[in-house]
Amino acid sequence: MSILEAIKNRRSVRRYKEDPIPDEVLYRILESGRLAPSGKNLQPWKFIVVKDAKLREKLAEASVRQYFMAKAPITIVACGLPDNCYAHMGRYMKSWPVDVAIAVEHMILQAQEEGMGTCWIGAFDEAEVKEILGVPENIRVLALTPLGYPDEEPATRGRKPIEEIISFDKY
Amino acid sequence: MSILEAIKNRRSVRRYKEDPIPDEVLYRILESGRLAPSGKNLQPWKFIVVKDAKLREKLAEASVRQYFMAKAPITIVACGLPDNCYAHMGRYMKSWPVDVAIAVEHMILQAQEEGMGTCWIGAFDEAEVKEILGVPENIRVLALTPLGYPDEEPATRGRKPIEEIISFDKY
Repeated sequence: MSILEAIKNRRSVRRYKEDPIPDEVLYRILESGRLAPSGKNLQPWKFIVVKDAKLREKLAEASVRQYFMAKAPITIVACGLPDNCYAHMGRYMKSWPVDVAIAVEHMILQAQEEGMGTCWIGAFDEAEVKEILGVPENIRVLALTPLGYPDEEPATRGRKPIEEIISFDKY
Repeated sequence: MSILEAIKNRRSVRRYKEDPIPDEVLYRILESGRLAPSGKNLQPWKFIVVKDAKLREKLAEASVRQYFMAKAPITIVACGLPDNCYAHMGRYMKSWPVDVAIAVEHMILQAQEEGMGTCWIGAFDEAEVKEILGVPENIRVLALTPLGYPDEEPATRGRKPIEEIISFDKY
């Protein structure tokens, strides 16, 4: 599958089958995140792969109107390590959300190639998510995504026309 | 090219040929950014495609030790539209850097598929970049990347082993 094809076909999937995910598929998805670029190659991230059904339910409850996510067999919780950046980057210490976002999107595109569904979730109670998973105080949670086989084929949502978002040489 | 293959092959390219980029290639790269997901589908981004050589030189000067970028025939400047998010997202108003980062990484992976090089640049004087390109006060600049045919084959930089960045069910 080409990059642009995967990008065109990706949807935010909100209905999942409960079928388990083969280990080698999960590995390729995680590997695609591991290899992401990051500022100064600091890799300020950690990913929690949540398979336990009770924990997944709690995570869904800690999210805002995203209860559907509990049905997917895995929830990936993407954490950022700000201290890592503070120590090495000075004024660029705020780069960790960008770095973590890149790694998550790599996983989401690889999941698409594997025929799996995902859904970027940014609306959740961070303190609650941290408590559920034992995330240390100095670590941030940037996003969650369910991961599983889709049980729906959502229509595409529109995008702004290219003329509206691109300009040449000046803003 | 598969997603994981593109991810594995991507490098931060710091030496470029001056060969021009065919319009249809540039179009596919921009299109891959246009189709990126974003919080509430707000698409809080705008991309400036800088071809003018003098402007590219000025952008390189506004960047920190990244003078190499002026040689690539295009610099893409990725802007974020925070107001867009403030109006619609309340507490999630800070999502724009994540959204813009996803769109930029889409372009970077598509560029890889097209045989082109890129380099995430986050170290620049934002006020200076905004002045060079006439970017309005309420618009932010998240990142720049040169875009051109690579004139080097950089070695891979290491990554943390997967055990160090992945855990199961708990942090």
